[in-house]
Amino acid sequence: MDFKTLEGGVCAAKGFKASGVYCGIKENPTKKNDIAMLVADVMCNTAGVYTQNKVKGAPVIVTKKNLEKSGGKAKAVIVNSKNANTCNADGEEKANEMCRLTADALGIKPEEVIVASTGVIGQVLPIEPIKAAVPQLMEKLSYTGNLEAATAIMTTDTVKKEYAVEFEIGGKVCRMGGMAKGSGMIHPNMATTLNFITTDCAVSVPMLQKALSEIVKITYNCLSVDGDQSTNDTCMLMSDGLAENPEITAEGAEFDTFKAALYQVMANLTRMLAKDGEGATKLLTCVCSGAPDLDTAIIVAKSVIRSPLFKCAMFGSDANWGRILCAIGYAEADFDINKVDVSLASKAGKINVCANGAGVDFSEDEAKKILTEDEIDIYIDLKLGNEKATAWGCDLTYDYVKINGDYRS
Amino acid sequence: MDFKTLEGGVCAAKGFKASGVYCGIKENPTKKNDIAMLVADVMCNTAGVYTQNKVKGAPVIVTKKNLEKSGGKAKAVIVNSKNANTCNADGEEKANEMCRLTADALGIKPEEVIVASTGVIGQVLPIEPIKAAVPQLMEKLSYTGNLEAATAIMTTDTVKKEYAVEFEIGGKVCRMGGMAKGSGMIHPNMATTLNFITTDCAVSVPMLQKALSEIVKITYNCLSVDGDQSTNDTCMLMSDGLAENPEITAEGAEFDTFKAALYQVMANLTRMLAKDGEGATKLLTCVCSGAPDLDTAIIVAKSVIRSPLFKCAMFGSDANWGRILCAIGYAEADFDINKVDVSLASKAGKINVCANGAGVDFSEDEAKKILTEDEIDIYIDLKLGNEKATAWGCDLTYDYVKINGDYRS
Repeated sequence: MDFKTLEGGVCAAKGFKASGVYCGIKENPTKKNDIAMLVADVMCNTAGVYTQNKVKGAPVIVTKKNLEKSGGKAKAVIVNSKNANTCNADGEEKANEMCRLTADALGIKPEEVIVASTGVIGQVLPIEPIKAAVPQLMEKLSYTGNLEAATAIMTTDTVKKEYAVEFEIGGKVCRMGGMAKGSGMIHPNMATTLNFITTDCAVSVPMLQKALSEIVKITYNCLSVDGDQSTNDTCMLMSDGLAENPEITAEGAEFDTFKAALYQVMANLTRMLAKDGEGATKLLTCVCSGAPDLDTAIIVAKSVIRSPLFKCAMFGSDANWGRILCAIGYAEADFDINKVDVSLASKAGKINVCANGAGVDFSEDEAKKILTEDEIDIYIDLKLGNEKATAWGCDLTYDYVKINGDYRS
Repeated sequence: MDFKTLEGGVCAAKGFKASGVYCGIKENPTKKNDIAMLVADVMCNTAGVYTQNKVKGAPVIVTKKNLEKSGGKAKAVIVNSKNANTCNADGEEKANEMCRLTADALGIKPEEVIVASTGVIGQVLPIEPIKAAVPQLMEKLSYTGNLEAATAIMTTDTVKKEYAVEFEIGGKVCRMGGMAKGSGMIHPNMATTLNFITTDCAVSVPMLQKALSEIVKITYNCLSVDGDQSTNDTCMLMSDGLAENPEITAEGAEFDTFKAALYQVMANLTRMLAKDGEGATKLLTCVCSGAPDLDTAIIVAKSVIRSPLFKCAMFGSDANWGRILCAIGYAEADFDINKVDVSLASKAGKINVCANGAGVDFSEDEAKKILTEDEIDIYIDLKLGNEKATAWGCDLTYDYVKINGDYRS
């Protein structure tokens, strides 16, 4: 299925307002937005997936507790960038305070608020600028505020990430849209990064969670920028039901359509995150097919996407397929390396570089032409079954080192 | 135990000759040595540990088969650089041919020869230059040929790696020495890189293997340059018994002394490999103590040493301890992140940056002074037990990207 795409990001679905402002969490001469709010017209069913790092940002802990307390109901999101509010003694207190400030302004309960933060770990979050920003965020809330919000959650991202689609459930037109931020410390298990997805399609909390967990596994969790798993990874999916379809409460064709829409939104956001990975000059998409099971396909595709040597070779447009095979070889999965085929492709063409685990003759000139493009596809065929997975990543460049050699300053 | 160090590398122990020459495996205007030979005066007991990558270099396969056939007996090593002889249809044939050429020249059996290769994967190994080199290698063999051999196995290494010690077993003076090559595709499981260690201490084959496997786990396997696990990793330990000590055939005080000597040789070679990691400007040594068991200590120390974000921060002399805690947090082991202490040290001083999983106040000036040194120690205390492990690595720099952006050309 391929659904019609829409503008509007998190405001594409009916009943979602957003806003973003600069509040000064960190001194910033360009005064870029650093705090965002997202508010639904009605209470939403909500599902979440969070980082599996033992070090969890305080906002992750607080959001999980809130949704447990509210039974998966939420009406608002408050999120700041530039400070992760993680590893601070007063972290949970501050995250709770962000929820209280938002709840008071909206006349809802604090546990109906989702809170998220991204930025530097281990610096005390200043609450005063946030307190001052909440009334401004409230005032600016609008059904076209998605862009202001999407820019407010950016850290080292160079472009905002939004995507939205339209689909039909039970004869009703439904919409779903999302925003995401990257762009380093990206090797999810789960999500990586902050992701907020809204929909007006009515779905029960358990089915929302089921869809999100399933799709996260094959989208955000198949993304690797640098192999570092963030402490604040959060992916939220909110449904306000305003499309007025009969609520999806079980598996079936409607649930499948919903999941296909969710896949389209999340896969495209994942792709944008990879393409805007820190210092990236090239988007790398690795498709592993012919796998005996889905997990094997995922593990192999991710192993290649994560390899620093392979990533450097792609930066240098070097068809060093030995590094691809090497990364396949250390993937912790069960397959026969002597059956593996590898090919490289871009809009400039496609070439086979490895068949049955050994090199094949190919034109270096043709390979160079293919690899100098800025979107490269790597196809791996294990020739053992019918399962398939995609992993997304980017090249490893001088700029990645530059950005991360002195990120705090 | 801390043993007296010696010059002489693989020739430090009694009865080992070595040589190295340039044979032209790859066009090379500077004609650096690219093939080496190591020959013992008498038959040696031999142990080996090899890559666990599913893609195994042909020389790895052949060496394993040889030692199985000979019952752990070997008298010579032939090793080339610049071509890994991996993923080639005729790889095993060529590796066997290298053994035959060496065996014929020495009047021994092919299965008594160890063969190893390092370099580019997937390019056919030219056998003619090797055939021509064997007589030259034989002629040059000498008890002081260690340096010629140590330089012949270098690829992107900038310095040769040798280390040797003297110890006493059963009233006899024994010697042990080794050579190693790095310096990218380094994230062992096992060894990484090529490592050849010789000793005149008499040890039975099973005890030699036991010592090697045990010490590899806490030295080479605790080294990470880039997280890529090579296809050709090989670590060989040869004992010719010429020190005339009663052969070590069981555990006990003598075996412990032997292992301590082996640890000193291998830990120092590991440290040299880390310090000369591709593009490295800094040696990073991470010590995890207070672990409930050895595996937890190893997993945590390696997780930090592997983190690209942490490695970039060290390149930038940035005391971004949040990234250290983050990498500890995603280590797949069982411990309480809220107990963890972290400190940073170099010859310029030592500071605590994190206590009980949260940041502590420290002087950024002092931190900068410590981190601008070229050897940085990271101390992690899990405060849960008495086990301890060390992992070695290096910073991630522009030069790593440069070296690997176009390695083949």
